[in-house]
Order: sequence, then C-alpha cells, then structure tokens
Amino acid sequence: MVSSRVNVDRIFRALGDPTRRALVEKLSKGPVPASILAKTLEITLSAVIQHLQVLEESGLIHTQKLGRVRTCQIEPKGLSLAEQWLSDRRSLWAKRYDRLEKLLAAPDDI
Amino acid sequence: MVSSRVNVDRIFRALGDPTRRALVEKLSKGPVPASILAKTLEITLSAVIQHLQVLEESGLIHTQKLGRVRTCQIEPKGLSLAEQWLSDRRSLWAKRYDRLEKLLAAPDDI
Repeated sequence: MVSSRVNVDRIFRALGDPTRRALVEKLSKGPVPASILAKTLEITLSAVIQHLQVLEESGLIHTQKLGRVRTCQIEPKGLSLAEQWLSDRRSLWAKRYDRLEKLLAAPDDI
Repeated sequence: MVSSRVNVDRIFRALGDPTRRALVEKLSKGPVPASILAKTLEITLSAVIQHLQVLEESGLIHTQKLGRVRTCQIEPKGLSLAEQWLSDRRSLWAKRYDRLEKLLAAPDDI
C-alpha cells in the first residue's frame, strides 16, 4: 500500500511536467532512442536524459542501453496505476452522489 | 482539441502536487468546506485556498460560497479527462505491442 502510494506520487509528479508528458506521448507510439526524442522535441540530449530518468524512476517508462544507443519504451503498469487512482476517486464521488440523489428522491417519512 | 489539451495540461500540473492530490482524495468522499479541509490537512486556510484555486482552474473541483462558508466539491469531468489521456496513451502502446507480437509470430516469407 505504501509503495503503491509512493509510485502514484512519483507518477503524478512526473506527469505534471509538459515535456515529460510529450515524451510519454511519443513513446506510446513505440520505443524511441533518447537522441531521437531530443531531436523531435527540440531539446538538448542532457535535458531529455534528465526527464527520462524522472519518468523511469516513477515507473512510467523503462530504458535499455545497447552500445551507445539508449532506447526508451512505455511501462504500461505506470499508466494503469495513475488511471486507477483517478478512477477510484471518481467512483467514490459517484457513489456518494448516488446516495445523495436517492436520499433526496425518497418520500418524506414525517 | 486545443482547449482539451490545455485542460489536460492544467489537470496534470494540478495533480503533480501531493497536497492537491490529498485535497482531491478528501473531496471524492463528498463536499467539504475549505476551513475543514485546512484543519484536516493541518495547513493554513490561505494555503488551502491557493491550492483549491489551482484545482478549480484546472476543472478538477468547483467551489461555492454561501455566506462566509466556501464549500468545495469534485468536478468528475476533470478526473475523466485525465483518465482518458492515460488510457489513450496505454491503448496506443498496446496496439503497437500487439502488432509487434504478430510480426514476430508470423512465418518467415523468405
């Protein structure tokens, strides 16, 4: 439970940055080398590597170095974890809202 | 399209902060006055109001002032928008992965 909360914290902090979300967008279409990501997003390689590190530490992507090429790909579990957090909050809210609607629709006992 | 992207940007930036996520957690259980949120989270009222403003501007909550009490509640559309963004990225990745698996499983034509 604690480690899942830590992950969710890291994931949302990672996704709070527009460049990192742009990286996730690119990677959702397939694995891409870090150097290509830097060119596509028009940022320096060292900046892209820093962002990739934050994404990797949060569990949203994983990277693999083969020779001099670091290739990055999506880790779908990370996306699912954040989706689950949002969906849980939304269903808690919906249950509460349903209860309130039923209460207001119920005939008056007095 | 543009305004939906702006919203997603604001939503993830808003959720990137642990205090704001804690506020969303509390509010998913039902509407709460700002002063109670400040007490529950043990932060000052002015800090809570700043966070609530960011959440409201991102479309994750809405607030209503009745007399001296500002009550806050979840805006489920905001949560759905972020969920949709994550789910779209995940399904793009899954489609790509399926294609790759089929390609690897296909008999060699040569």
